[in-house]
Amino acid sequence: DILVAVEAFQASLQDRQAELLANAQLWKQRRLLITAGPTYEDIDPVRFIGNRSSGKMGYAIAEAAACAGAEVTLISGPVSLPTPFGVERIDVRSAEQMFAEVQKYYAAADCFISAAAVADFRVEQMAEQKLKKQNDVDSMSLNLVKNPDIVAWVTAQQDKPFVVGFAAETENVESYARDKLSRKKLDMICANQVGQGLGFERDDNRLTVISASETLALPQSSKSELSSKLLKIIGKALS
Amino acid sequence: DILVAVEAFQASLQDRQAELLANAQLWKQRRLLITAGPTYEDIDPVRFIGNRSSGKMGYAIAEAAACAGAEVTLISGPVSLPTPFGVERIDVRSAEQMFAEVQKYYAAADCFISAAAVADFRVEQMAEQKLKKQNDVDSMSLNLVKNPDIVAWVTAQQDKPFVVGFAAETENVESYARDKLSRKKLDMICANQVGQGLGFERDDNRLTVISASETLALPQSSKSELSSKLLKIIGKALS
Repeated sequence: DILVAVEAFQASLQDRQAELLANAQLWKQRRLLITAGPTYEDIDPVRFIGNRSSGKMGYAIAEAAACAGAEVTLISGPVSLPTPFGVERIDVRSAEQMFAEVQKYYAAADCFISAAAVADFRVEQMAEQKLKKQNDVDSMSLNLVKNPDIVAWVTAQQDKPFVVGFAAETENVESYARDKLSRKKLDMICANQVGQGLGFERDDNRLTVISASETLALPQSSKSELSSKLLKIIGKALS
Repeated sequence: DILVAVEAFQASLQDRQAELLANAQLWKQRRLLITAGPTYEDIDPVRFIGNRSSGKMGYAIAEAAACAGAEVTLISGPVSLPTPFGVERIDVRSAEQMFAEVQKYYAAADCFISAAAVADFRVEQMAEQKLKKQNDVDSMSLNLVKNPDIVAWVTAQQDKPFVVGFAAETENVESYARDKLSRKKLDMICANQVGQGLGFERDDNRLTVISASETLALPQSSKSELSSKLLKIIGKALS
């Protein structure tokens, strides 16, 4: 039993080494642009609309790509994560700021991975001063307008790189992801379930990687291990 | 010149030691209930309304009080801070959850410090599933209803402890704070300016402490040093 376990462990180590080697061949000197984390849409100087993205998945991919020799630019929403070694990191807060940075960098990239959870809507009019509660008012309404669709903008460009999106959903995960793949003209999409202890704010995850030609299920593992497997799939599609 | 600097440093050390000693006498075995951090009001399983409170001020006060020998219960919104040594910490997310915990603990406390930035409003109806963006919809409106006023509820109780509030404002800081002191029947209020690089998400701060009988300005310093000074002021008022 111990021998079997040791052999299985050695085999998994060899798989991992082979993956790292393959990634180093696939990604050396490739340019990767990746977004990660949430965006925060300010209501006033104190309050904002946020989302539960921790940025861990995007940061893990950025780190694995840099480790494989890629030139990585990471455009990051507000997260509490250290910058991975060898990665150029640009911090933004809102979807509009993220969009502006993506517009600067997408053309130089071989691949764009949109791992950020970009807010669909922003507040119509941000208040310059902190909004005061009025004692006689028991309710209020917040008017929201649509944010730019960053990933769809990139796929609409003539000089677009290979574009990989993410779909974090609480239900009907794969069908929403397929719909998003075709609607936004993505080359590939990574679908993952969120809620019920999966996805956001966690160190592990599981993904279904979907392109026009194939569907691959990556079973639950650490975000770092998932990143290697994902980069191998993308790297093959790139070359 | 070096001598003068050394003497000034020694004098400041002695002041600090005297303060720690005074606090140990004022707070030994006193029970402090304190709230800290933001509250997050969920829009759906992914999105929420948050605010920029880091929890650092409240956590620094909790730590200084525990260090002075107080029995400290800390009710904390979502923050990325470690629990201070010797402090009992209860984690909550929304204003309603924080209110429920304060209702359990206030009666046993000698002092209640409301340092949390509690959301004034919550979303009227949280969505069970992630809200989907519709392509033909360019705007939406979010209906909000008022949250319970936790600190005003405590000051309205017959068996209320000594109650200290915070007022984080972007303008007219002192006058808003005086208004809040009387409107919410607080025993004391700490006013601080936020925005323009002050207050939220920082390690230092400055406070104006206001009660019916006095107004004290605590100049800019670390949140830990401010906490000692503040506890000395509150401790004297308690005894």
